[in-house]
Amino acid sequence: MLFMVEMDVAIPLDFDADEAAALKAREKAYSQDLQASGVWRHIWRKAGLYSNVSIFDVADNAALHDTLMALPLYPFMTMKVTPLCRHPSSIRDDDS
Amino acid sequence: MLFMVEMDVAIPLDFDADEAAALKAREKAYSQDLQASGVWRHIWRKAGLYSNVSIFDVADNAALHDTLMALPLYPFMTMKVTPLCRHPSSIRDDDS
Amino acid sequence: MLFMVEMDVAIPLDFDADEAAALKAREKAYSQDLQASGVWRHIWRKAGLYSNVSIFDVADNAALHDTLMALPLYPFMTMKVTPLCRHPSSIRDDDS
Amino acid sequence: MLFMVEMDVAIPLDFDADEAAALKAREKAYSQDLQASGVWRHIWRKAGLYSNVSIFDVADNAALHDTLMALPLYPFMTMKVTPLCRHPSSIRDDDS
Amino acid sequence: MLFMVEMDVAIPLDFDADEAAALKAREKAYSQDLQASGVWRHIWRKAGLYSNVSIFDVADNAALHDTLMALPLYPFMTMKVTPLCRHPSSIRDDDS
Amino acid sequence: MLFMVEMDVAIPLDFDADEAAALKAREKAYSQDLQASGVWRHIWRKAGLYSNVSIFDVADNAALHDTLMALPLYPFMTMKVTPLCRHPSSIRDDDS
Amino acid sequence: MLFMVEMDVAIPLDFDADEAAALKAREKAYSQDLQASGVWRHIWRKAGLYSNVSIFDVADNAALHDTLMALPLYPFMTMKVTPLCRHPSSIRDDDS
Amino acid sequence: MLFMVEMDVAIPLDFDADEAAALKAREKAYSQDLQASGVWRHIWRKAGLYSNVSIFDVADNAALHDTLMALPLYPFMTMKVTPLCRHPSSIRDDDS
Amino acid sequence: MLFMVEMDVAIPLDFDADEAAALKAREKAYSQDLQASGVWRHIWRKAGLYSNVSIFDVADNAALHDTLMALPLYPFMTMKVTPLCRHPSSIRDDDS
Amino acid sequence: MLFMVEMDVAIPLDFDADEAAALKAREKAYSQDLQASGVWRHIWRKAGLYSNVSIFDVADNAALHDTLMALPLYPFMTMKVTPLCRHPSSIRDDDS
Repeated sequence: MLFMVEMDVAIPLDFDADEAAALKAREKAYSQDLQASGVWRHIWRKAGLYSNVSIFDVADNAALHDTLMALPLYPFMTMKVTPLCRHPSSIRDDDS
Repeated sequence: MLFMVEMDVAIPLDFDADEAAALKAREKAYSQDLQASGVWRHIWRKAGLYSNVSIFDVADNAALHDTLMALPLYPFMTMKVTPLCRHPSSIRDDDS
Repeated sequence: MLFMVEMDVAIPLDFDADEAAALKAREKAYSQDLQASGVWRHIWRKAGLYSNVSIFDVADNAALHDTLMALPLYPFMTMKVTPLCRHPSSIRDDDS
Repeated sequence: MLFMVEMDVAIPLDFDADEAAALKAREKAYSQDLQASGVWRHIWRKAGLYSNVSIFDVADNAALHDTLMALPLYPFMTMKVTPLCRHPSSIRDDDS
Repeated sequence: MLFMVEMDVAIPLDFDADEAAALKAREKAYSQDLQASGVWRHIWRKAGLYSNVSIFDVADNAALHDTLMALPLYPFMTMKVTPLCRHPSSIRDDDS
Repeated sequence: MLFMVEMDVAIPLDFDADEAAALKAREKAYSQDLQASGVWRHIWRKAGLYSNVSIFDVADNAALHDTLMALPLYPFMTMKVTPLCRHPSSIRDDDS
Repeated sequence: MLFMVEMDVAIPLDFDADEAAALKAREKAYSQDLQASGVWRHIWRKAGLYSNVSIFDVADNAALHDTLMALPLYPFMTMKVTPLCRHPSSIRDDDS
Repeated sequence: MLFMVEMDVAIPLDFDADEAAALKAREKAYSQDLQASGVWRHIWRKAGLYSNVSIFDVADNAALHDTLMALPLYPFMTMKVTPLCRHPSSIRDDDS
Repeated sequence: MLFMVEMDVAIPLDFDADEAAALKAREKAYSQDLQASGVWRHIWRKAGLYSNVSIFDVADNAALHDTLMALPLYPFMTMKVTPLCRHPSSIRDDDS
Repeated sequence: MLFMVEMDVAIPLDFDADEAAALKAREKAYSQDLQASGVWRHIWRKAGLYSNVSIFDVADNAALHDTLMALPLYPFMTMKVTPLCRHPSSIRDDDS
């Protein structure tokens, strides 16, 4: 089941730089693990912004919630969640 | 080059039903041709809404404009366009 | 899987009164069938408004979409969809 | 008498972790007591957000106010209150 | 129990003038009956606007809903409902 | 001359508790003096919020401004001011 | 007593041109009479828009309401009313 | 050439009181000099708010920008700028 | 003196097609004359939208107003006007 | 390929003045290098605001992103990005 999640990241200007770098590294590893497993289907950067558009493929709403809450940068993010479903015009069988 | 386009469709209540059906059929054919050619990479329905989230892969802004303007349902749509680019955490080589 | 759906209804002032009454009767029957089957768990009126807050229990996003699209009054409604999940403080086993 | 209350929680990034944990524990106990007594009828998490949708059953507006003001996390919350009433299509006698 | 209700009235430009006058006369009579009975405690015009701020004193949310739905001009109004309660600084015993 | 004033209060989480208590005590005394003199006609709490709806009866805009600016909690408040006047349907001679 | 009133004018595209011209002529005459009498102190066009910013000098809120309601183009206008008062830095004795 | 400028002032709660008083004194002197020279034509307080509406008469956009940037309180202000021009109904020759 | 003007065009679905074509032809001729004379410095399409971003170089606010009001498609447009001035980092002498 | 980028700058009141001056100097040099190379085609100040409107000419969305992310003041900016394309009425061959 697919969801679009739009994430805006805002790390305070005075946040410790080393800690921020460590969090970003953990975020990247976490994201790439979920991409490899197929849960995090797509991630794109919004051009010019510290924001992304992501597509998640999860079992249900609770799985989405748990996946997002475990993001290392979650406390710095504003989330917008949009449930998606197959479009009647889609020609891709695997694109739900 | 990728763009997210969010389309909300609003056909007036008193619009001729046959004409609406014809437009929707042309819209579907047009969309499927562009999906087959790789221009319209993804199309998902927003659950519960007469709206979609789409990802387009075009040469430039002008190509995006021409592609959207030719949508048979364009006069009934409200569009939101977001330019995207590769995310540094993405593991998919073909996903930007 | 639960969703909150907020529906605002706006029937044009000059819409045929008999047709409106027929649509409302069909809407009520449709809603009550879904309530009886457990899909439409709750429906409350927002006090003073021609709007409701509803809780749906469906298999997935697609089932939600199909259920809402089949509402007889759908063309007159503005929808807001919010995916829900079990709250860690909830004491009701059957409430998510 | 029913009210929908939507609560968004925002604890500052630099708030003491132990104090936050203590407040959350008190919040959970307070919520579960009110659920057991029937005042806090439902609580659901909004998927992906640190927010909930709750349904309260109280004697009047003043009782709602006092109940919410006593929430241990109230100073960290943004509240949206919507008065509800029985929907004419509802088939559940006990659902307002 | 008190509620603030803000009502904005918008009668279409091409609405029949006689019918509008008749509706306004019925609206005035209905409002004055409710004022006399104590249900509609206050009504003020917002200066320069075709809008009012009203205070209702009703038994519960359902009574508020029924009272507002019966307004002759309801189909032309946009409503905003705010539940009120006694303020701890109020010195008027009868003002909540 | 009447004005509706809606006041939202937001005292920072780390503000000194004793100083806040002193300010609230002064605010309450100031409000009650103005209520006794008839300037502050009504004050109601918005249920669930740290906000009030108030009706002021003042000589002119300048008197309203001076009255509000002297509120001990003014620096912590967001104000919304709406000028009111007698409604043609009002039956209360003293209510505008 | 001064008020800023911002007026946006929107005459429907299919409104009768002669009737519109007649209304505008009456609006202009009405405005100029009020300017001559000192009630309508200033009127400026917002550059590029069919909107104006006006300053009214009236006895009270009710006088403002009656003055605005009598505008020939009132049914086509959206109004925003802001009560003003003398600024402590003003050097013009007659400017509030 | 005229511009309406709306200024909202927000000085942080913990800002040094002496420094604030000095800035306000400089702001007042600066404003009164510009009023005397005819550049700052009008300044009114928005009733109940720490905000003003001002009318500036400057040679061009650049002169407006330089005038505003030199305001001692500029770093604490949120500005809204609206270019104005003579209204065709105005009867005051010097009011555009 | 430069202004940014953002124009959104919305021609009703049932507007006569020939009349619309004639208006668009006149709009194009008008725009190109002003471009040739240097008044309309730039015009760009917003990709995917029936909207443009334009830069005008005019003598003053009144000239901008008259230029925009004479647009053949003005009655179908929503305008947003932003006064611009030379940026201190600009290296182009002729660009403000 | 052209983009409009609107940048609002907000440097905290308590940010070190020397550091701010150094950042602004680097920002200016960076901007002027990009203007000289043709990437940053235009930059204008919004009159009265600490904001600019800029036109960028870049190879693609990714180039825009990298260019903006390298702005020395980027952490203090709020960005709005609008993809542009040639307008059919434009008479300037080099204005895309």
